[in-house]
Amino acid sequence: MVAFKLLTVALVAGSAVAQTFRRTASCPKLGCVFPPDQVDFVAGQTFDIRIEVQAPVNGSEAYNNGKPDPNFSVKIGGEGAELMDVTTFFGIADPAVESYNFTYYEDLFASQAGAKTPVNVLAKSYRNIQLHNPGKYKVVLTYNGGMTTEATWEVLPLSDCKKAKNVIVFIGDGMATSMVSAARLLAHKTVNGRYQSRMKMDEAPAYGSQMTHSLDSFITDSANSASALFTGKKMTVNGLNAYTDSTGKGFANPKVETVFEMFRRITGGQVGIVSKAYIADATPAAVCTHTSQRSQYTAIIEQYLNGVTGNFTWFPWQGVDLLFGGGAENFLAGPGNGNVSQFERWASHGYQVGYNNTQLQAFDNAERALGLFTRGNISTWLDQHVYKDTLDFAVTPQGARGAYDQPGLKEMTLKAIDILHTRAKARGTGFSLMSEAALIDKEMHVQDVDRALGDLLELDDTLRATLKHLEEIGELEDTLVVVTADYGHGCTADTKFLEAQTADRAKRNAVGVYQNSGLSAYTVPEGVLPTNHTQFTSPQGDGFPVTWDPRYTIAHGWAAIPDKREDFKINSYHERIPAVSNTSGYFFNPQDNPAGFAMTGNIDVSEGQGVHSLVDVPVYAWGPGHELFRGVMGNVDIAFRLAEALDLGKTSNVTAPYTK
Amino acid sequence: MVAFKLLTVALVAGSAVAQTFRRTASCPKLGCVFPPDQVDFVAGQTFDIRIEVQAPVNGSEAYNNGKPDPNFSVKIGGEGAELMDVTTFFGIADPAVESYNFTYYEDLFASQAGAKTPVNVLAKSYRNIQLHNPGKYKVVLTYNGGMTTEATWEVLPLSDCKKAKNVIVFIGDGMATSMVSAARLLAHKTVNGRYQSRMKMDEAPAYGSQMTHSLDSFITDSANSASALFTGKKMTVNGLNAYTDSTGKGFANPKVETVFEMFRRITGGQVGIVSKAYIADATPAAVCTHTSQRSQYTAIIEQYLNGVTGNFTWFPWQGVDLLFGGGAENFLAGPGNGNVSQFERWASHGYQVGYNNTQLQAFDNAERALGLFTRGNISTWLDQHVYKDTLDFAVTPQGARGAYDQPGLKEMTLKAIDILHTRAKARGTGFSLMSEAALIDKEMHVQDVDRALGDLLELDDTLRATLKHLEEIGELEDTLVVVTADYGHGCTADTKFLEAQTADRAKRNAVGVYQNSGLSAYTVPEGVLPTNHTQFTSPQGDGFPVTWDPRYTIAHGWAAIPDKREDFKINSYHERIPAVSNTSGYFFNPQDNPAGFAMTGNIDVSEGQGVHSLVDVPVYAWGPGHELFRGVMGNVDIAFRLAEALDLGKTSNVTAPYTK
Repeated sequence: MVAFKLLTVALVAGSAVAQTFRRTASCPKLGCVFPPDQVDFVAGQTFDIRIEVQAPVNGSEAYNNGKPDPNFSVKIGGEGAELMDVTTFFGIADPAVESYNFTYYEDLFASQAGAKTPVNVLAKSYRNIQLHNPGKYKVVLTYNGGMTTEATWEVLPLSDCKKAKNVIVFIGDGMATSMVSAARLLAHKTVNGRYQSRMKMDEAPAYGSQMTHSLDSFITDSANSASALFTGKKMTVNGLNAYTDSTGKGFANPKVETVFEMFRRITGGQVGIVSKAYIADATPAAVCTHTSQRSQYTAIIEQYLNGVTGNFTWFPWQGVDLLFGGGAENFLAGPGNGNVSQFERWASHGYQVGYNNTQLQAFDNAERALGLFTRGNISTWLDQHVYKDTLDFAVTPQGARGAYDQPGLKEMTLKAIDILHTRAKARGTGFSLMSEAALIDKEMHVQDVDRALGDLLELDDTLRATLKHLEEIGELEDTLVVVTADYGHGCTADTKFLEAQTADRAKRNAVGVYQNSGLSAYTVPEGVLPTNHTQFTSPQGDGFPVTWDPRYTIAHGWAAIPDKREDFKINSYHERIPAVSNTSGYFFNPQDNPAGFAMTGNIDVSEGQGVHSLVDVPVYAWGPGHELFRGVMGNVDIAFRLAEALDLGKTSNVTAPYTK
Repeated sequence: MVAFKLLTVALVAGSAVAQTFRRTASCPKLGCVFPPDQVDFVAGQTFDIRIEVQAPVNGSEAYNNGKPDPNFSVKIGGEGAELMDVTTFFGIADPAVESYNFTYYEDLFASQAGAKTPVNVLAKSYRNIQLHNPGKYKVVLTYNGGMTTEATWEVLPLSDCKKAKNVIVFIGDGMATSMVSAARLLAHKTVNGRYQSRMKMDEAPAYGSQMTHSLDSFITDSANSASALFTGKKMTVNGLNAYTDSTGKGFANPKVETVFEMFRRITGGQVGIVSKAYIADATPAAVCTHTSQRSQYTAIIEQYLNGVTGNFTWFPWQGVDLLFGGGAENFLAGPGNGNVSQFERWASHGYQVGYNNTQLQAFDNAERALGLFTRGNISTWLDQHVYKDTLDFAVTPQGARGAYDQPGLKEMTLKAIDILHTRAKARGTGFSLMSEAALIDKEMHVQDVDRALGDLLELDDTLRATLKHLEEIGELEDTLVVVTADYGHGCTADTKFLEAQTADRAKRNAVGVYQNSGLSAYTVPEGVLPTNHTQFTSPQGDGFPVTWDPRYTIAHGWAAIPDKREDFKINSYHERIPAVSNTSGYFFNPQDNPAGFAMTGNIDVSEGQGVHSLVDVPVYAWGPGHELFRGVMGNVDIAFRLAEALDLGKTSNVTAPYTK
């Protein structure tokens, strides 16, 4: 009966405000506290506090003709202790009040009608602070004549016992369990249902699962999901280790320190970043940069080198130790880049600079390095290794088009380990590396599952090589290796039969379900049945398919898709472009899979690609502290478990010297 | 280069035979051995051996004008030991030779052309045998003038150390990780991304993942996947603890004993079966029945009561101790059932019989019980608890239509535990129970994700109640509880906006992605934003949504779908019927989601429902032996880990007496 009463009251009190058109994330009332309620911290983790007092001029939350009360205050205290002013508590000066306004739509109807709601804001930010003592803290913002917004934070009681000296985190971007299942069957042969070989991931001594939802939406992007993994704080879409406040600006948002930054600050250790994406992309950027707008590539690159600068305090950052990936276009001298060549600038800061795999392999392991091996994203594993004709589309950092010696994830990762290890050894520290299999996601967006699975297998191959290499250099016992994803995306077809039919509906008869789905024909040569027990070797070696283009293929289908044409065959000529736009949104691309059948999408027609799903994603761990990564957890728990394994949460952290 | 050579040879040797039209599963050549190559056994597990020698009359494998060689032999030996005739090895008589023929199509083209391939067969079956000594065994069939088919089997070296006295296995039929993720967000509230409560499954001390593919296809059905879970042997679609041979008949196929049968045979323990499906359905049937055709309902029910009968040997079975579920139609006296009422027959065998929840709860815990609470499947949790008007469609066992007091999964499971526990205690044995949340799968087939998620939450609620009840009756420390699935199936929408649009493409604009996907509005009353931090109580209690019909819903989308209409709203009136058939296959059902938009399916137009996927599914375990269920495993490993925890693999099993 209590529940029913609550329901009735709530129905009466319910406003017309729509959740998909939020005034500001994590502001349940007109006063906002960042970091928000129910956030955990590593002891000594650096962060900013921001408070906002808002007054909408009109709409369902209109307040005082849009005039926020200037007499607001924010207090903080440990559990049970008296609250005191935040400036007193932290021993910091009272910052200046910001005054500004923004507008938003309350819902789709308001948006359709162009009926904006203006909101006036007063705000303050308290910068570069830390909480060292484990326990709960209460924050109370009082504003607008007695309204309050409260937040409870907890500094976690982490064990004071170092398990790992080094850490390597692999991110399979968009790698849901269904992708791992599919990749396994492509590359690993079964006999009567028994796998004759397994993915390296399958052998992890610790296996878990993590929930990927973000602060204010269930479907995340790479920026806020990676920020959650690396800071232990859920963010808003597009946010990189910074909460999205109401300013609409990309900088000066409230920031949170990542475990990689803490590792550098506290231990003086090496930090390296590897990605197959353009290197200013969200996942690599989440290692150590701070902005609510992931598209601020120039600023992200600047932060890689010099950390957060500007007219507010943040701890000093002496630059990443290595940066390997794509995206050379953001490093070229040009109008959008202040006519400065970042290549020359980084070289002047002591970085070796390389543009192809030969130069990568020739890097001196004792020196810092910048390796940008392409414009845009590095070519997919499939394009690099199987359908090499497609490399004619590749673009060198200098802008030339055509095939050249690009590295893959494995080449970049192993060289990164050599450099980080050599430099760490010389300085008596450990090392940390984030290596991203970025194209799993990017290829799933364009519904090109073959290319996505190729890069997933490349990740598994890289993982296998990494564990072997760590053993060779004597660091296996000291290195925690974690593999996970940031979110998910997410049948069999007789392609020969499909191609032979002319009508759309007849083509679909080629899709097999249940017993007609068959075995994986990727592990046998064309023309050999998968029931054949012979172990065939892939031209690309163990861990890869024998053929990528069998008559019987896995059919591609998942959760959130645009209009597209499907023929369930690999596109050997180019990555897919499933939909093309016209004046009323995206439609089937008639040039994509022209022999296939048309399939209506299930997402907004303004989206031309598939989108992320909310599925939990797997976690695999090896090495010291691996046992912390078992079971079902949240994405934020990854950060806390990394911090625990690396002992970054000692109640009194000491900042260690770092030698470039 | 070796790989390339193999490829070339294989291409030349490749036949035109298509894998989706298999001659016989697990017969890579013209001689077949069941159990097939690379199968593992629990020490002392009972099974049949069957060999077949085949000769196709025409087609790409034509042999000797279709005349198989009668001079075939089958030998077996331990690793390194001399092979001996299978009759000598097992000390059994040589069985009679069977001679028959069957026909099949080599591929879709042959099928389209009606060009059949006849195959003549000679076969023998060796019944009711066991291997007790751990280690590898080699089986060699020699036939057709010197051809050989070999199989290597392994009797696993299980530890001789009992961990658990009782076992409860929950099967969430069709419960992929994506379903768990979705169910969690429906029922459990988040504040700034932090769950305020968790599913019981999330708290499991052991978490793993299992691969669901079957013997001869990657997409499984409930029969062969449950057989894999319970016997440790992968089967063929429709096969229940029996390999599908070439006879085309449902019985006399080579059988394998399940862990539940072993538990009964070796320990004399209690065996109970609970399902929300009709009780002759595949998952409950896989506990202890044997047929290659899951549709043999009458025979399955007979086997529940009397075990395998007929003119060949199998060990005796004195009947299940309880059977709770739906499917009363298969127990009624009628022409298809020999005009015998199974209700009366089971009563005459000493079973209490009940038809509704009141009678279920009134059962004497000391006596065996048969409870069939509906015709067809028991109503979904959602229909039983939220949209109760739909219970007008329910049918009592006696055939009356309308609402009545049906039990749910929790009521059946808790009563089952009471009966099994009471009876086991009286006999000094342990108990085993298989409880199936069957409707997750059945509702996903008809694209009714709300009803599927309701039954998934009911499973979680049942799990929570089960662990609590085991503690109350003092059996928690002695009971292994495992929760898993057999296979998977597998966005957000502003339904109000969607309904207000008229054009299909405009409706799709209501589907939110990324930041517009929003929070779960299922955990707050209608009209209250999910950003509101108040903890609202569900009318159905903790672990269920506050509302099932919010304006902002999760959108439904997954891997393998028929034509359908989508409005992303719950169907409060009836479960969904996404597609209807006409002369050329299934099309959108215009009466299903009439306010939604049409979406083209991606599967065979002869399928009117969504189908299973190949995704790995989660495993959760509690209690003694739970640690065995960590990490990535195969579905067959579940059986071996259950056997290990229950110590069913002692090298010398003794058959214990069982008291009815």
